[in-house]
Amino acid sequence: MNRIFTIVSFVGVPLVVAGSFLHWSSVIMFILCCVSIIGLSAIMGRATESLTIISGPRIGGLLNATFGNAVELIIAIFSLKAGLVGIVLASLTGSVIGNLLLVLGLSFFIGGLKHKRQNFSLRDARYNAGLLIFAIIVAFVIPEIFSQGMDDRGTISLSIGISVIMILLYLAGLFFKLVTHRGYFTGSDKESHGEQEEEEAEWSKGKAILILLLATAAVAFVSENLVHTFEDIGERFGWSELFIGVIIVAIVGNAAEHASALILAVKNKMDVSVEIAVGSTLQVAMFVAPALVLISLMMPVQMPLVFTVAELVAMITAALLTIVITLDGESNWFEGLTLLAAYLIMGIGFFFL
Amino acid sequence: MNRIFTIVSFVGVPLVVAGSFLHWSSVIMFILCCVSIIGLSAIMGRATESLTIISGPRIGGLLNATFGNAVELIIAIFSLKAGLVGIVLASLTGSVIGNLLLVLGLSFFIGGLKHKRQNFSLRDARYNAGLLIFAIIVAFVIPEIFSQGMDDRGTISLSIGISVIMILLYLAGLFFKLVTHRGYFTGSDKESHGEQEEEEAEWSKGKAILILLLATAAVAFVSENLVHTFEDIGERFGWSELFIGVIIVAIVGNAAEHASALILAVKNKMDVSVEIAVGSTLQVAMFVAPALVLISLMMPVQMPLVFTVAELVAMITAALLTIVITLDGESNWFEGLTLLAAYLIMGIGFFFL
Amino acid sequence: MNRIFTIVSFVGVPLVVAGSFLHWSSVIMFILCCVSIIGLSAIMGRATESLTIISGPRIGGLLNATFGNAVELIIAIFSLKAGLVGIVLASLTGSVIGNLLLVLGLSFFIGGLKHKRQNFSLRDARYNAGLLIFAIIVAFVIPEIFSQGMDDRGTISLSIGISVIMILLYLAGLFFKLVTHRGYFTGSDKESHGEQEEEEAEWSKGKAILILLLATAAVAFVSENLVHTFEDIGERFGWSELFIGVIIVAIVGNAAEHASALILAVKNKMDVSVEIAVGSTLQVAMFVAPALVLISLMMPVQMPLVFTVAELVAMITAALLTIVITLDGESNWFEGLTLLAAYLIMGIGFFFL
Repeated sequence: MNRIFTIVSFVGVPLVVAGSFLHWSSVIMFILCCVSIIGLSAIMGRATESLTIISGPRIGGLLNATFGNAVELIIAIFSLKAGLVGIVLASLTGSVIGNLLLVLGLSFFIGGLKHKRQNFSLRDARYNAGLLIFAIIVAFVIPEIFSQGMDDRGTISLSIGISVIMILLYLAGLFFKLVTHRGYFTGSDKESHGEQEEEEAEWSKGKAILILLLATAAVAFVSENLVHTFEDIGERFGWSELFIGVIIVAIVGNAAEHASALILAVKNKMDVSVEIAVGSTLQVAMFVAPALVLISLMMPVQMPLVFTVAELVAMITAALLTIVITLDGESNWFEGLTLLAAYLIMGIGFFFL
Repeated sequence: MNRIFTIVSFVGVPLVVAGSFLHWSSVIMFILCCVSIIGLSAIMGRATESLTIISGPRIGGLLNATFGNAVELIIAIFSLKAGLVGIVLASLTGSVIGNLLLVLGLSFFIGGLKHKRQNFSLRDARYNAGLLIFAIIVAFVIPEIFSQGMDDRGTISLSIGISVIMILLYLAGLFFKLVTHRGYFTGSDKESHGEQEEEEAEWSKGKAILILLLATAAVAFVSENLVHTFEDIGERFGWSELFIGVIIVAIVGNAAEHASALILAVKNKMDVSVEIAVGSTLQVAMFVAPALVLISLMMPVQMPLVFTVAELVAMITAALLTIVITLDGESNWFEGLTLLAAYLIMGIGFFFL
Repeated sequence: MNRIFTIVSFVGVPLVVAGSFLHWSSVIMFILCCVSIIGLSAIMGRATESLTIISGPRIGGLLNATFGNAVELIIAIFSLKAGLVGIVLASLTGSVIGNLLLVLGLSFFIGGLKHKRQNFSLRDARYNAGLLIFAIIVAFVIPEIFSQGMDDRGTISLSIGISVIMILLYLAGLFFKLVTHRGYFTGSDKESHGEQEEEEAEWSKGKAILILLLATAAVAFVSENLVHTFEDIGERFGWSELFIGVIIVAIVGNAAEHASALILAVKNKMDVSVEIAVGSTLQVAMFVAPALVLISLMMPVQMPLVFTVAELVAMITAALLTIVITLDGESNWFEGLTLLAAYLIMGIGFFFL
């Protein structure tokens, strides 16, 4: 699996470079960029994992939390630079529903085909449920509803205020999980870290950092090219900006994570699998999204934290469904299928919109 | 009890036949039709139960799932044929809130007057909670919100897509409960079926099938007459189409089921009582509603899966209230009263609308 | 603590009397009124507590339930008399989100700094969760949505109907907790009452009643003066009617309760602390709000039970967040911080609105 991702990156990136000079057609560039990004994010994942093992659970947790959604953040920054605010908000939505419904659904479904019932930490599930409600149902809904009675300046001020609060709460959450209440969460300490400590790091510290930096630079370059294909691709296939953002960008930006969640589910390590899917959602909602709002202040077009009603409803219902399905700390194939069915329904909805 | 229903049917149906030829007044026909349908659905319930006992839990479960809401389906088909799309959607809404709030509320309240606290299966409650969120909060909300930005063709396409997905998921749920995870749900296996196996079937296989067919035909005939009284009745009593659908049709279509849920609650078999109320809701939401969308494609007027905002809000809040109240696997009279109060509030709301 | 409140009252009330004759500036009067009300409500709390201890848990529970939000009720009645319907609805909203997010958040946070994890009764949490969903998500949402298709008479009729149902259900809930299922709720019987019985009443029955009556009269007088400063204060500080109601009035009206919830949280009596915060919310939603609707029928301007969308969304999301965070019967500092962050976000939202 790892070898495939490496080959894909080493072939894909040079082709993207070539294509960007030779002005290849949008379709070819779109495919090349998508494939390269998937390969590169797998490499970044491995580098981050090595660093995590070397630096111990505390700093490792911080590293994971920072680089876990780096690819998404990079694509979003280049989209913001190109003024595609709509695509950024759509891709954040896609990340949330993709992680909660597609990844968690596939993990539960495929894991459930092999194991009659799989368990995961109740404490984690509850911690995650509280933050999902906070981030998606409180922090995303408030600006949507309140901004209807505001001018643009009020909306941006409110967005900035909320973004700062969310990032601070996100950092407080890391402090809570990694410092004051470490060992309280089974999932993150006993199982995953316990095991990682047995493992040896794949790469040395220096090598891992170098690879991380190179891969990040490559992702940035490829992302810039990817972003410029969106308009053409949309016209050619009849895909709306919304559909490209919610479905395509979100899947490409999260593909590597998706693969590891799935593999862990089959190995019956549902704790870590759920942690990846839901943890990544929380990271997107509580860190990536507010960070992008703040970053956009330095961009030509500012991005308020205001999703469309359709995006908001998709995220809220996805969060509620996930919370109710995970609150018992158990999963089976049918729960996975239910999540997948919800994803499919939303996908069809965004396609026809 | 059974005898009363039989007498009612044997007197009511001939009177409906007579009235339809002699053009009796709408009020008399409305009352006769309602009473006959209640009687007939009790008979159909007994026939289905006999067949269930004879054919064992698997096929029996399937039979129950198919014929459980047959009466409602028949009334809805005749309403669709008469072009009354609004009444069909309203009666589906009424079925959902009637089952979740009125039936479950009465069961909890009356059962709770006799027993200080009653228990039911936690596994069932969680399975049901997940599907309620899926069906009502995801699958019904998405077309409502998304269709606002679509033309009629997009809305119908989305409705068809969602309907197919819901029916497939419903069938997968039956497969899950009856095949791969049988014995996993206490409610459906130990208590209800365990007991039914001790019981003897009331009627032989042949007799049960014959009665089922005859009663179904009679229900169809009476339903067609009932549907034609709606306009007159609405004008005479000042009831809106919405009120007739949500309150009247829903109560008539589910009366027999309601009676058995109540009787079981008093007997302290809360497991089966909850299963009837919530299971029937899920059947309406995940099978009857999408089936009607697909059936309407062959009718003069097509029915999209788009409820009014009031209907949707009534169903969503009913689902959330039920989930929170049932998630602990316990009930008492006050929880029942809370559900009934919510039903009353919605009833007043639909009356004034 | 108690001494400070007494001094504040004995100095504040005479100053308000003086100011109202000498026409002092609005800012000074506003501050004097707020401080006096906080002091007086602390005294009323002590008198109620004495009466509760003397009259035993049943009548005591009833007394607590009636006088617990007396200050709020009085301020609201004077606001209604002045025709400030918008401020009354806003202050009810502020009471709900203030109790659920600010008080509960502070209790969890400050209690959690001292104790790694604090527990409270699961039964209470579930009872409260059911009623929160009923009151805020069913009874407040239905008139909002349904009134959009109604004329004013329909809206008022629906509001009256819902108000009567809610008050009856609230009384039934008291009957349930204090009579039929007493001893069922750990929080209310073993811990809090058990302890109060050991304590001696601070004041005799006669003295407590006299103090209660005098303090109530003083609160009424001060409230009337407070209400008349709102317009000036709003203009001078750029605060909207909404912001004054949601944040200022709500904090002043509940300050004494807030203090006792906090003190109990630090003493690790989280059961009582949660009971105060959530119980007070339920009282506001199920008793104070509907009572004000009925009282407003005798006023020049009638108050329908129709909040603004922003108010409704704030209350719904606060209720959902609280339910998910309290459903496990445990709290820690981070859960408290999450609730506080949600309050802050809403506060910013109402400020910019």
